[in-house]
Amino acid sequence: MSSARQIGVTELALRDAHQSLMATRMALEDMVDACPDIDAAGYWSVECWGGATFDACIRFLNEDPWERLRTFRRLLPNSRLQMLLRGQNLLGYRHYGDDVVDHFVEKAAENGMDVFRVFDALNDPRNLERAMAAVKKSGKHAQGTVCYTTSPLHTVEGYVQLANQLKDMGADSIALKDMAALLKPQPAYDIVKAIKDETGLQVNVHCHSTTGVTLVSLMKAIEGGADVVDTAISSMSLGPGHNPTESLQEMLEGTGYVADLDKMLLGRIKEHFAAVKPRYSQFMSSFNVETDIFDSQIPGGMISNMESQLKQQGAGDKLKEVMEEVPRVRADAGFPPLVTPSSQIVGTQAVFNVLMGRYQVLTAEFADLMLGYYGLTLGEMNPDVVAKAKEQTGKEPITVRPADLIPPEWDELRDDAAKLEGFDGSDEDVLTHAMFPKVAPKFFKERPQGPKNVGRDPAELEAEKLAAAGDTGSGPVR
Amino acid sequence: MSSARQIGVTELALRDAHQSLMATRMALEDMVDACPDIDAAGYWSVECWGGATFDACIRFLNEDPWERLRTFRRLLPNSRLQMLLRGQNLLGYRHYGDDVVDHFVEKAAENGMDVFRVFDALNDPRNLERAMAAVKKSGKHAQGTVCYTTSPLHTVEGYVQLANQLKDMGADSIALKDMAALLKPQPAYDIVKAIKDETGLQVNVHCHSTTGVTLVSLMKAIEGGADVVDTAISSMSLGPGHNPTESLQEMLEGTGYVADLDKMLLGRIKEHFAAVKPRYSQFMSSFNVETDIFDSQIPGGMISNMESQLKQQGAGDKLKEVMEEVPRVRADAGFPPLVTPSSQIVGTQAVFNVLMGRYQVLTAEFADLMLGYYGLTLGEMNPDVVAKAKEQTGKEPITVRPADLIPPEWDELRDDAAKLEGFDGSDEDVLTHAMFPKVAPKFFKERPQGPKNVGRDPAELEAEKLAAAGDTGSGPVR
Ligand SMILES: [Co+2]
Ligand SMILES: [Co+2]
Repeated sequence: MSSARQIGVTELALRDAHQSLMATRMALEDMVDACPDIDAAGYWSVECWGGATFDACIRFLNEDPWERLRTFRRLLPNSRLQMLLRGQNLLGYRHYGDDVVDHFVEKAAENGMDVFRVFDALNDPRNLERAMAAVKKSGKHAQGTVCYTTSPLHTVEGYVQLANQLKDMGADSIALKDMAALLKPQPAYDIVKAIKDETGLQVNVHCHSTTGVTLVSLMKAIEGGADVVDTAISSMSLGPGHNPTESLQEMLEGTGYVADLDKMLLGRIKEHFAAVKPRYSQFMSSFNVETDIFDSQIPGGMISNMESQLKQQGAGDKLKEVMEEVPRVRADAGFPPLVTPSSQIVGTQAVFNVLMGRYQVLTAEFADLMLGYYGLTLGEMNPDVVAKAKEQTGKEPITVRPADLIPPEWDELRDDAAKLEGFDGSDEDVLTHAMFPKVAPKFFKERPQGPKNVGRDPAELEAEKLAAAGDTGSGPVR
Repeated sequence: MSSARQIGVTELALRDAHQSLMATRMALEDMVDACPDIDAAGYWSVECWGGATFDACIRFLNEDPWERLRTFRRLLPNSRLQMLLRGQNLLGYRHYGDDVVDHFVEKAAENGMDVFRVFDALNDPRNLERAMAAVKKSGKHAQGTVCYTTSPLHTVEGYVQLANQLKDMGADSIALKDMAALLKPQPAYDIVKAIKDETGLQVNVHCHSTTGVTLVSLMKAIEGGADVVDTAISSMSLGPGHNPTESLQEMLEGTGYVADLDKMLLGRIKEHFAAVKPRYSQFMSSFNVETDIFDSQIPGGMISNMESQLKQQGAGDKLKEVMEEVPRVRADAGFPPLVTPSSQIVGTQAVFNVLMGRYQVLTAEFADLMLGYYGLTLGEMNPDVVAKAKEQTGKEPITVRPADLIPPEWDELRDDAAKLEGFDGSDEDVLTHAMFPKVAPKFFKERPQGPKNVGRDPAELEAEKLAAAGDTGSGPVR
């Protein structure tokens, strides 16, 4: 075994796993007891922070996300803490001024973040460059990300080109990010090998398990040269989540690769989350495995969004038409990967097309996408649709980096935050408000009440359900 | 794609999948509507019959298992029907006389069976030879099986030797059977390649998905030369079951291998079982994935058996001790694979050892195992324990084929069956009674009432639960 190549592992239990499996609802207090074991298990990094965790903290859990980060830093002193950063969007849903990007990265680093996985939904490198530069400046690990999708235009060469651009930005490593579990074994091998050969950088691979094939893809990615792979401890794995950490480690036995994690500690981490998980059953779906997305390209979450939009319009029977419209809309927009926010933008436009006639009405977001305000997509935009976007919005198409049009905004954001009840004066609070301006005011006000754990004891939930049923008579409920 | 090697697929939905996921409870009527699509999807074979389905049919479903077989034959006219046969045990729990083996195989073939996967829990080829000969005589496909396990004595060479012995028996193909999901990718490759190179026969691979690694193992088995792999349609897959059929097919894209199944039909089969499955939720566990078995060698079902035995003795706190005792007992017995019935025999003896002192009391079955009455294990038996077995039972160890000691018994079995109310005079009924003598009498009597579907509408189940809770007051339950 001495000649076996070491494969690093990024543990996802504290971020993406509970985001994917239980709507990001896990409270910090349900994670802390696992931290000493996670810290000692031998992971390459521990992912623990990102847009959805930040959002859920202030929206549902009355937890300060910065305090969560500082807690992880304290409880995981020997680990690389890792976060997912949406490039110029940071953790929010719009492009921010460069000065805000700088402030955010500086504060995240200061509070304990080590590895910044920076991505853009459209794979437009210009949306990554400021964040990458800020990470480099902070002295932390800048991981440039290639989002994986499939289309007639997406090629191994294209992914390698993007990886090279990320290397030019100073990337310490390249992540291949497969948020929709579309990455099959052979492309995993081909892309990782080409990126590795071309850039010489560390390559990390992130796959979801939705389609059931991606542990095989991780095997092939490792054979192709991947250095680090993302997994989640088994009790927090599979379904729309990720491949199990223990399975990854066991799978490698005898292959010439080894993931050197402490099995005893993995067992304890597994038991910890196995005990916690039932408390969040009301947020979990019964999703098992689904390969339809290979043909439709439409992620499960996007289908349910479109379905509920259609139902609101009394057109629930039109889902099939909409699903057939999606690939056309995606093609007209130059084949963006379908991931937040592009999945919502394309999906809603497909609904509009079916209900009101093709491109009779454009959503503001879709018009912006067609006019370049989200950045460049790989393919050409359909010029007829671009013309309609101009006509409907009165806006001109742009080709510059979208953030170039955003003036410095830090001072104004600070002033806005300062007006809020409960604002504590810190840059962290300014950033919290900047990311989630609709949610932060209420959070600042209620923060003193302390964290709210929304997990529920399964027996308690069951008892309530039964009580509700029994509570229809006039007597006491036994 | 024209040069891609074709990989056959055995669909498990009709047998092992519902056996593994829902305690073998699926009624025939919940399968029939999927049959035309299964028949046309392009499978190499359709597994649909075995010991547990036979047992469940007469014990829980009031279904004649032979009628089930004939129905599959009628509904799947273009498919190879496949069954799992426990060698000299047939579908029962003891060794049968050779004449019964002959009768059983003849009748199964006559009623429509095409492929007989013949195995023995101890991998003792002498327990397979009569059944293999009977299949050959019937003109059907004889698939000799190698049960996979790990121990200090189990080697690639040993598995190849067994495969060669099966070839000498006339095997049309060799199955590598991994009932406990212990088969990791590298051994899968090594063993399949060696068996393929040595025997030149078709190699089929059967893996469960329990440990999460075995789709990778199927990939490596295919790279090693496997011709056919076993999977279950996605809505009936994963957990203690099997890898998803659709994922297998998708995984192969671009690899130089192809499983040429009709995707549209797979989609319909998936939908069929997705709709049926919730009716059996009361039989399903929430099991997700578990890698502990790689170290403990103790399958999940065996742990729960031992746990309930301990609890009955008021010794529920001794489980850890028992789990540590199991490997020693297995070693003393010559490292049998832990699969029915050896898992129960070894597990119960481990419980006895912990509760009463090591080998102070032997179970009758464990004594028989030590004395050779189940056949030979790969390793040497511990002579001290063999001596105790002799002493406690007064029986002598044997080295002959166990069934050599069983005289012809068909006529007697026919006479026994003839005495039963509801016996229809057929050889099939004689065999049903021979396999399950404790269950068949009641079944014969109640057979005229027709099949009982134990699946339940989830809404109905829920309503009953609520009603039971509300029904504690005196007023009407609304
Ligand atoms: Co993810
Ligand atoms: Co099986």
